Amino acid sequence: MTERVVTACLIIIGNEILSGRTEDKNLSHIARHLNEWGVRLTEARIVPDLPDRIIRTLNEARRAFDYVFTTGGIGPTHDDITSECVSAAFGRPHGLHPEAHRILVDFYGKERLNEARLRMAMMPEGARIIENSVSGAPGFQIENVFVLAGVPRVMQAMLESLKDRLEGGRPRCSRSVMVYLPEGTLAGGLGTLQKHHPEIEIGSYPFHEDGRFGSRLVLTGTDEAELDAVADRLEQLLDKLQGERIWGSR
Amino acid sequence: MTERVVTACLIIIGNEILSGRTEDKNLSHIARHLNEWGVRLTEARIVPDLPDRIIRTLNEARRAFDYVFTTGGIGPTHDDITSECVSAAFGRPHGLHPEAHRILVDFYGKERLNEARLRMAMMPEGARIIENSVSGAPGFQIENVFVLAGVPRVMQAMLESLKDRLEGGRPRCSRSVMVYLPEGTLAGGLGTLQKHHPEIEIGSYPFHEDGRFGSRLVLTGTDEAELDAVADRLEQLLDKLQGERIWGSR
Repeated sequence: MTERVVTACLIIIGNEILSGRTEDKNLSHIARHLNEWGVRLTEARIVPDLPDRIIRTLNEARRAFDYVFTTGGIGPTHDDITSECVSAAFGRPHGLHPEAHRILVDFYGKERLNEARLRMAMMPEGARIIENSVSGAPGFQIENVFVLAGVPRVMQAMLESLKDRLEGGRPRCSRSVMVYLPEGTLAGGLGTLQKHHPEIEIGSYPFHEDGRFGSRLVLTGTDEAELDAVADRLEQLLDKLQGERIWGSR
Repeated sequence: MTERVVTACLIIIGNEILSGRTEDKNLSHIARHLNEWGVRLTEARIVPDLPDRIIRTLNEARRAFDYVFTTGGIGPTHDDITSECVSAAFGRPHGLHPEAHRILVDFYGKERLNEARLRMAMMPEGARIIENSVSGAPGFQIENVFVLAGVPRVMQAMLESLKDRLEGGRPRCSRSVMVYLPEGTLAGGLGTLQKHHPEIEIGSYPFHEDGRFGSRLVLTGTDEAELDAVADRLEQLLDKLQGERIWGSR
């Protein structure tokens, strides 16, 4: 009963993330939305604003995953080089996209559409526009690669518009529980439970809150009934270990 | 005048990050500390808890970068598989590390040191311990790979202890300014400035605050005097464009 998993890789482009100056806010949003659509984020890479590194990463990822999403580097300044790199990765001519051009003319007016802003309409030949309802300049799709903005509000609007373009499998659901027991106490029983239910992924994450140590346990799978069954077995284990707990879901 | 750049790759191991359930808090901390020690984080990869994916990523990264850091997957539960994967990647026997074993006996006492916790002393042959002053179970180093915990407080303590093991180059410094001008207005002058000062990296990041659009401009380099000179030129550009601004540094 192995289901086909539809996979995605996220490529986060930007020196500002790698320098530690800016914290990425996009990954978790993208991961959760893709999951709702049945697409599983199975890898993410954060790469600097260097053409050869971006191009190589794009080419590796687009062959290894069903879908590839990029964030960042599609603005008007000299350090925005994502679109050119995508053209290079696909070996396609890089030029003015008529529809993107029209969108920018409408948004900025002919006077404010200077040379720098015009760069935002330069795309690989054959690109399909991804609408930007927030700030005009669109993203684009080429084959299985989706090129999105880095600014979270803009990225979110672009992603939202992709729902019908992606073909996913069954979304994964989860049950989670926080229990005031250290991982080392839980590990034996948890390992046995995982062995008996290979279709459900059991994750265990230690936490430390209000001076107390505990574990967050997360059950993930596509079959709700089986999830509930494993959650019941987990309840029994936690009862046996007398673990104080708080259940959640999602 | 090209300086040798000492590079690092961070491998974040964990399904909980890729599912969007947990936000990574380690990357920016690691990036900033490494930079102080003259080591530049030049790539990060987030991979799931799957042996083949972890092993392949480790082997690619340890050949391509001067240093590799991993976070996550070194606890006592069944989903903690990082250490085994590191042994496999290096083709070394995986066994009980005498010093790690002694540390765990001291920390837990013989009674509480069950089979699960004992797994935390299993390491590749020849590993060098990385002390954990917070919660006992150590990380380890093998060649240019540093295996750290995923829990931020623990990871931070481990990283701190590595300062003298790493050989870095010159740390990078930066100057930054926030200016209430859109990127499209700045782009021309900024591009020219970058062309004239290739040793200084000029980054531009749009922001939207209190209903106003603006750009955060970041100058980065290893030569403070040159940084100040470029910052002066940038001042002149912003004056010309009448941009309201707030300078910072770091």
